[in-house]
Amino acid sequence: MAHIPLKDGLPGIRALFDFRPETAAPLCELADVLLHQPSSLTAAERELIATYVSSLNDCFYCQHAHGSIAAYHLNGDENTVIQVKRDFAAAAISEKLKALLAIAGKVQKGGKQVTAEDVEKARQLGATDFEIHDTVLIAAAFCMYNRYVDGLGTWAPKDLETYKPRAAAVAQGGYNRIPSDIRSHVRATQA
Amino acid sequence: MAHIPLKDGLPGIRALFDFRPETAAPLCELADVLLHQPSSLTAAERELIATYVSSLNDCFYCQHAHGSIAAYHLNGDENTVIQVKRDFAAAAISEKLKALLAIAGKVQKGGKQVTAEDVEKARQLGATDFEIHDTVLIAAAFCMYNRYVDGLGTWAPKDLETYKPRAAAVAQGGYNRIPSDIRSHVRATQA
Repeated sequence: MAHIPLKDGLPGIRALFDFRPETAAPLCELADVLLHQPSSLTAAERELIATYVSSLNDCFYCQHAHGSIAAYHLNGDENTVIQVKRDFAAAAISEKLKALLAIAGKVQKGGKQVTAEDVEKARQLGATDFEIHDTVLIAAAFCMYNRYVDGLGTWAPKDLETYKPRAAAVAQGGYNRIPSDIRSHVRATQA
Repeated sequence: MAHIPLKDGLPGIRALFDFRPETAAPLCELADVLLHQPSSLTAAERELIATYVSSLNDCFYCQHAHGSIAAYHLNGDENTVIQVKRDFAAAAISEKLKALLAIAGKVQKGGKQVTAEDVEKARQLGATDFEIHDTVLIAAAFCMYNRYVDGLGTWAPKDLETYKPRAAAVAQGGYNRIPSDIRSHVRATQA
């Protein structure tokens, strides 16, 4: 049971967006910039980083919500998503993404864990400064989202099939589409 | 030395805001809603939560930037800020804030560390659902900001006096004042 009263039927962070629309707006915008808006990292690569960090943080909702979006971008290849969480070194992904996942895993433990050698290795495999920046911020951001979702005890559906329809919608339309009634409320309170 | 090329002279997260204005906007907005905009928690209480979590994450820049803002809101009482970091149970703060700091400390370790008993204790000491929500999100957000700042190896001034002028400006004006040239850039790239 959640630690605060939340609307029935809304899973994970979606119930928290409903509870506090003022924080929902920048949280959605941040996810949209990092995961959906144009980048030299593919959407699948970025969602795999988010899924991997959520798995390390043992956040059921986030790892399956973003794992489903990653699988959508990979044309339904759920095995790669599972393999990245289990042992990304053995996954069918690029060497550059493996180096970025290694950095993300360090960030999950703590910012100071990232070394110049970790960054240099990613750079030698083709990662740009922008990609290194965004990898660190995606990993850091999921250390927030995961703690927010689990720290307030939100509900997560156990049936993984239920994550797929929304995954397709988010993969296509992005994160920055919080319901219009929430946007209206934010505008009203900021007026 | 930072892991990516950053503008000289900008400390901590400010150099990262300059590097990636598109993510700076929601990151500043989130801090402004949580720490500066009206709340039943005082600005000092919220900055103490941010400072405490940053201290647990051993982030030099964030704990001193936000510690200086907390001290400003406490009429210059730096001892209370230091005592909250050292052992908040012995600090000259309310019992309600101690219960919220206990929750924040659990969130820093991981979202699932927060128990119904932690939340019930805070509630019995007067904390509202809104305050419990915001405490969890402030703690979670600083697990992001701290990792972002240290994961990219940003520079932090060692002279604590240098944090005070900006602390006063942020305490008065809030976080949502990223430079106008950055806002222009964001608008241009989104157009």
